[in-house]
Amino acid sequence: MPLERFGVSMNRELLQQLDQAIEEAGYANRSEAVRDMARAFLVNRQWEAPDGEVVGTITLVYDHHVPGVVAKLTALQHDAEPTVICNTHVHLDHHNCIEVIVARGAAEQVRRLADRMISARGVKHGQLTRTAVQQ
Amino acid sequence: MPLERFGVSMNRELLQQLDQAIEEAGYANRSEAVRDMARAFLVNRQWEAPDGEVVGTITLVYDHHVPGVVAKLTALQHDAEPTVICNTHVHLDHHNCIEVIVARGAAEQVRRLADRMISARGVKHGQLTRTAVQQ
Amino acid sequence: MPLERFGVSMNRELLQQLDQAIEEAGYANRSEAVRDMARAFLVNRQWEAPDGEVVGTITLVYDHHVPGVVAKLTALQHDAEPTVICNTHVHLDHHNCIEVIVARGAAEQVRRLADRMISARGVKHGQLTRTAVQQ
Amino acid sequence: MPLERFGVSMNRELLQQLDQAIEEAGYANRSEAVRDMARAFLVNRQWEAPDGEVVGTITLVYDHHVPGVVAKLTALQHDAEPTVICNTHVHLDHHNCIEVIVARGAAEQVRRLADRMISARGVKHGQLTRTAVQQ
Repeated sequence: MPLERFGVSMNRELLQQLDQAIEEAGYANRSEAVRDMARAFLVNRQWEAPDGEVVGTITLVYDHHVPGVVAKLTALQHDAEPTVICNTHVHLDHHNCIEVIVARGAAEQVRRLADRMISARGVKHGQLTRTAVQQ
Repeated sequence: MPLERFGVSMNRELLQQLDQAIEEAGYANRSEAVRDMARAFLVNRQWEAPDGEVVGTITLVYDHHVPGVVAKLTALQHDAEPTVICNTHVHLDHHNCIEVIVARGAAEQVRRLADRMISARGVKHGQLTRTAVQQ
Repeated sequence: MPLERFGVSMNRELLQQLDQAIEEAGYANRSEAVRDMARAFLVNRQWEAPDGEVVGTITLVYDHHVPGVVAKLTALQHDAEPTVICNTHVHLDHHNCIEVIVARGAAEQVRRLADRMISARGVKHGQLTRTAVQQ
Repeated sequence: MPLERFGVSMNRELLQQLDQAIEEAGYANRSEAVRDMARAFLVNRQWEAPDGEVVGTITLVYDHHVPGVVAKLTALQHDAEPTVICNTHVHLDHHNCIEVIVARGAAEQVRRLADRMISARGVKHGQLTRTAVQQ
């Protein structure tokens, strides 16, 4: 992809603070950091538009001993309007599983799928993480 | 304050999306937008350091008819370790007031003050907003 | 307003952890804490509906020396679709002001007003805090 | 695990709004919803304590064509202080991969690992999702 270059002006003190923070965070240089900030800014806006095409990861902690929870979560994934690309299941301890589901579709629909999964019986904690295909 | 200028490289598609989003958001130009993103990045990091010097605004919705709530909120502000700079009180309707408190101090202490206020009897909803003195 | 009472069942360990956390946060009792959690849950959902009636506080840090910033922020408040109820201005230091604006209206419009203010030239950092009139 | 039961008092209007919202969200009953709110409240507090034992999922979108990115992300996982339990890799399109890493350890260290991964060259967008082992 063709690269473009543009200039940013900033007062010296802000730039010094920024340089320190991007070094602490581990960025190789300012461009790398600014590109990440730009993408985070865009992701937030894409998720605010109800029909924005997004990618969400849904993290669930649940107790697989609760009758029906596995079947319910499986059914929700198969019936979902957004495409569920994959899920990963982790055994944390005797009672707790973590499941991470990656889904792609309209923001409104991914949010709805997350709602349904987080509210399912046996699911103890759930979070929707917002990202998107990136340029 | 002396201004500095630095270059940022970005692939064309990301730059086009960014330009569209900063126009929609109402920014005058890219530098203005990047400076805001840099400050937001810094504020997040300042609040993660427990002794970072920060400014917080605490928004409370409460029912001033609940006995003792006004006295309690006043006492908390006077006893607080962070400096409470000011507060603003708004009458929303017969039961609901909004009060916005601006406080300055160590992140950990501002968070603690917010905790105490949000949990006070009569306070129905509270939020801590994170900002800081800016370069 | 008439009070109602309902029962919640919870395993012992979760209840012990919850009791410890609500004590640390400063809540007087479980009902007080659960009511706050219920209201926070509702506020999040009201803000997701574009036409939900909400209250937002917009916190801005800006440099009042930047030509035009005060006039611009004033004009935005007067032209805004949501009702701007009040604003409070704090002098932080020679360069930095904090201004907190309380606005009421449709979620989408309050968000739009916040966008316009945060992106205004001279505004260095801005945050929108989400609340609503509470039952 | 032994179940306990406790009563919550709430005014009628708040309860009606809550009932509507938990039905929309898909909860089977109030207890289920309140337990989830309690756990979300606890997770937030565990993540604020720097040495709280937590579980984080780190979602990364990156371009696997960028030289060194895969090796770098692998090395970070192997060197990490928190235990990286697993990672899942998804091909989104010709350029974009999503990788979800599940890590367990002290909040401060999981946050640090996320920082290092999100700032790595080639990583375009990253998010840390906060959860914990649940009771």
